[in-house]
Amino acid sequence: MTNPPSSMIAELQSFAMQLADSAGALALRYFREPLAIESKADLSPVTIADRSIEETIRRMIGERFPEHGILGEEYGADALDQEFVWVIDPIDGTKAFVSGNPLFGTLLGLLHQGRPLLGVIDAPFTHERWHGLPGRTEDNQGRPCRGRQVAQIQEAILYTTSPDSFTSAGRTAFASVAELASLTRYGGDCYAYALVAAGHVDAVIEEGLQPYDFLPLIPVIEGAGGCITDWDGSALSLQSHGRVIAAANPILHRELVARMRGCP
Amino acid sequence: MTNPPSSMIAELQSFAMQLADSAGALALRYFREPLAIESKADLSPVTIADRSIEETIRRMIGERFPEHGILGEEYGADALDQEFVWVIDPIDGTKAFVSGNPLFGTLLGLLHQGRPLLGVIDAPFTHERWHGLPGRTEDNQGRPCRGRQVAQIQEAILYTTSPDSFTSAGRTAFASVAELASLTRYGGDCYAYALVAAGHVDAVIEEGLQPYDFLPLIPVIEGAGGCITDWDGSALSLQSHGRVIAAANPILHRELVARMRGCP
Repeated sequence: MTNPPSSMIAELQSFAMQLADSAGALALRYFREPLAIESKADLSPVTIADRSIEETIRRMIGERFPEHGILGEEYGADALDQEFVWVIDPIDGTKAFVSGNPLFGTLLGLLHQGRPLLGVIDAPFTHERWHGLPGRTEDNQGRPCRGRQVAQIQEAILYTTSPDSFTSAGRTAFASVAELASLTRYGGDCYAYALVAAGHVDAVIEEGLQPYDFLPLIPVIEGAGGCITDWDGSALSLQSHGRVIAAANPILHRELVARMRGCP
Repeated sequence: MTNPPSSMIAELQSFAMQLADSAGALALRYFREPLAIESKADLSPVTIADRSIEETIRRMIGERFPEHGILGEEYGADALDQEFVWVIDPIDGTKAFVSGNPLFGTLLGLLHQGRPLLGVIDAPFTHERWHGLPGRTEDNQGRPCRGRQVAQIQEAILYTTSPDSFTSAGRTAFASVAELASLTRYGGDCYAYALVAAGHVDAVIEEGLQPYDFLPLIPVIEGAGGCITDWDGSALSLQSHGRVIAAANPILHRELVARMRGCP
């Protein structure tokens, strides 16, 4: 597989920024306003904010690139066999969003021939955005992002969004790593992964994620020199089962996979 | 006990805002910069940011109100028998701070004859501040804050900063409430209490807090119509042991105390 030409990447990247701008404006219009919170089949919450952001993004993609496929959290899969497929989590951290917590974000990813090419983590309340392209990740000031070079779990700062998202076996495996880490913190959703890319957090370990949660993160983490895979160290794909390790550098990633691998 | 005259409260409140301005400017100067992280005797982290903020605040108080007492996280107690005693947590959420997480804050409280009179939660990265006075809490736009009127645990949004901060018995008691709540989220430190006052979160339950962590929160929660006590429903004071329940209204507070009370 080869990447598309750089002029095409630049065009797609610029369009992704427009999508994130529109998503962020909508998110802030609904944030901290009274919203009806519905429960989806998997009991996760959804609001009009999630739906209207995804509708807007899908409409913008359809107008500009009608041949592209789309996978979104709220409206499902459309033409996933296309060369380019957008992956959308309109509000990653809906539980944070509905509780007034500003660490939610919109995730946008673009797969090329099934492989993550571009990724955006947009945190509109704090006016922060991180975007990953082949070989580099930048923040919204255009500053390059680089993960820390902490190689030992004992020196690492570890995040996970919620202990309640683990299975029983997963929680035990996570606890065995957390006990070694220099610091373990909770909360953050996609924001925690952005902190890995930005060089403030060393690793995130989670379970129960969906492809729209993790595929957009891959270019952001990899472009900052980090690694993100499933718990066995395998590449994440549309078929992955939602166990994710992100680390700021390959050495720490290897250490973490060695401890999480084989968790039943 | 009677409150000081309102002109004096206004003067003290205005001074507290100056303290928060200075603290926030210092915090942002150090935030996300490489800092040496030391471990204190209780293994909690401390940085030059915590120390320089507290030094600045203590100096400002000493210059303006040399007769006032001070209790601060980093530099201890001074003249706690005075009519007015300031309570300072220079960076509440140091673990968030050192991991680049913007949900840290400076806490400032003022006790009058041992009773919390004023409280400030300042979150400089998000440019948010909540301050509580006798009978009212406002945000930094001057908007009055009011806790939600959710009366049932089953409809409540519950926060705690970290499951690792509980004792074994405390974790079990917390889990029994979390299992009933409509949503349980982690992280946030003082920011979670601000969300209770601001009407986005219904309750926070924590253990292992220190007087400088909880005393400044009391006017903010109470001024928004909420209640904050220890797990037995008793008033929090300099002598309390660090088990805290904050709820957005008295009815929900009573429900939560009924479940947490008596936890060994």
